[in-house]
Amino acid sequence: MAQPLPGIKEYLPHLAYDLVIFGFNGKQLKILLLEYQNTDYKALPGGFIRREEDLDAAVKRGLKERTGLDHIFLEQFYTFGNLQRSRPDIMKKIIEANGISISGNHWMLDRFMSIAYYALINFDEVNPQPDALSKSINWYTIDDLPTLMMDHKEIAIKALEVLKLNLDKKLIGMNLLPQKFTMKALQTVYETILGEKLRRTTFQRKMLGKDILVRHEKLFTGGAHKAPFLYSFK
Amino acid sequence: MAQPLPGIKEYLPHLAYDLVIFGFNGKQLKILLLEYQNTDYKALPGGFIRREEDLDAAVKRGLKERTGLDHIFLEQFYTFGNLQRSRPDIMKKIIEANGISISGNHWMLDRFMSIAYYALINFDEVNPQPDALSKSINWYTIDDLPTLMMDHKEIAIKALEVLKLNLDKKLIGMNLLPQKFTMKALQTVYETILGEKLRRTTFQRKMLGKDILVRHEKLFTGGAHKAPFLYSFK
Repeated sequence: MAQPLPGIKEYLPHLAYDLVIFGFNGKQLKILLLEYQNTDYKALPGGFIRREEDLDAAVKRGLKERTGLDHIFLEQFYTFGNLQRSRPDIMKKIIEANGISISGNHWMLDRFMSIAYYALINFDEVNPQPDALSKSINWYTIDDLPTLMMDHKEIAIKALEVLKLNLDKKLIGMNLLPQKFTMKALQTVYETILGEKLRRTTFQRKMLGKDILVRHEKLFTGGAHKAPFLYSFK
Repeated sequence: MAQPLPGIKEYLPHLAYDLVIFGFNGKQLKILLLEYQNTDYKALPGGFIRREEDLDAAVKRGLKERTGLDHIFLEQFYTFGNLQRSRPDIMKKIIEANGISISGNHWMLDRFMSIAYYALINFDEVNPQPDALSKSINWYTIDDLPTLMMDHKEIAIKALEVLKLNLDKKLIGMNLLPQKFTMKALQTVYETILGEKLRRTTFQRKMLGKDILVRHEKLFTGGAHKAPFLYSFK
């Protein structure tokens, strides 16, 4: 199933993007990795940017082509640009393992910077599909990642750091919780992503102090006085 | 004073960086802009990346060459990559206004992405110097910026948004305050950068809740019971 390699007339040299797709179902935080055909390399989904294409458009296109996922809110977080991150030897192996030959001076074996994006989605609600270069695509637990290609583990760790900052602003847009949720469910989201237990009273006070939640009236049905309050994002 | 243009053998095509240098003296927030020779273009300091140079190293080198500033803590915050941001017409004018001729297919007139960095320094303590391409380098008030070249205003506004997020983490490393400072001085820093007045009691409670400050004992000299507490970052 050898395909032609992407051409330098169509793509910008030296520039790639990588995607850190966090999957979260309210209880577990995972990350989406591709495994390349006939190699042991596990990698973040990524790709190149067409010369006549906005950066964000390239990333959305690549997400769909490489994982089958579409309509996901992606956010750019960092560009990785040191010299030593480029590994033409690994790139060559992946390409040749797909039955494609590549000359030593091909643009895909040059130095690359990678512009990295992350997303946070509910992994119970999506069904990613591997692309032609990959034999599998799977969710991996963030605390127990396998060896990743090149600097992809560093990219994933940086994404997690960024996700942890201003988590409330990020959660509002990402539809990880039902429209109305309990304070306990919200606390579980924070605890899982931050990787630490939080005190219930402190968490509740902090969240209410941020002015991002609306508290809804309880329904007065039988026994409802014991039901917890429900909240939604403003 | 025509200099040779940077060569494509030495620099990576399609990639530039821009610097948003915030100046802050405890009272005012400003931004550093270059004005190009014989044009009205005001611009963020920026430059290109050498093929054999880490991205961060290129940015530090360029900061020094273009502004005379050195040893400043810079942080990358975003890469601007849409198609329409590239303006070869403006680039051509700036180069030609310096008495240098450039051919229409020169790599400097191609599409560029810009990797943007920001810094926050005390403008009373530095003395920036314009480079050979620029007739001046000056601090401009952030609320009253002149027209900037290409998408440089958009880059500056994005930098300000990022600076406002997690401001306490950013301030700790940036030496904008003396080692020991009053709560009132800290509040002034926040108010100026955030561009809004904060309630004294709310601000104090929030800061103390963040676990980033150490409170120092008052010195018991005459009248010292009226002196405010001093704090330092942990």
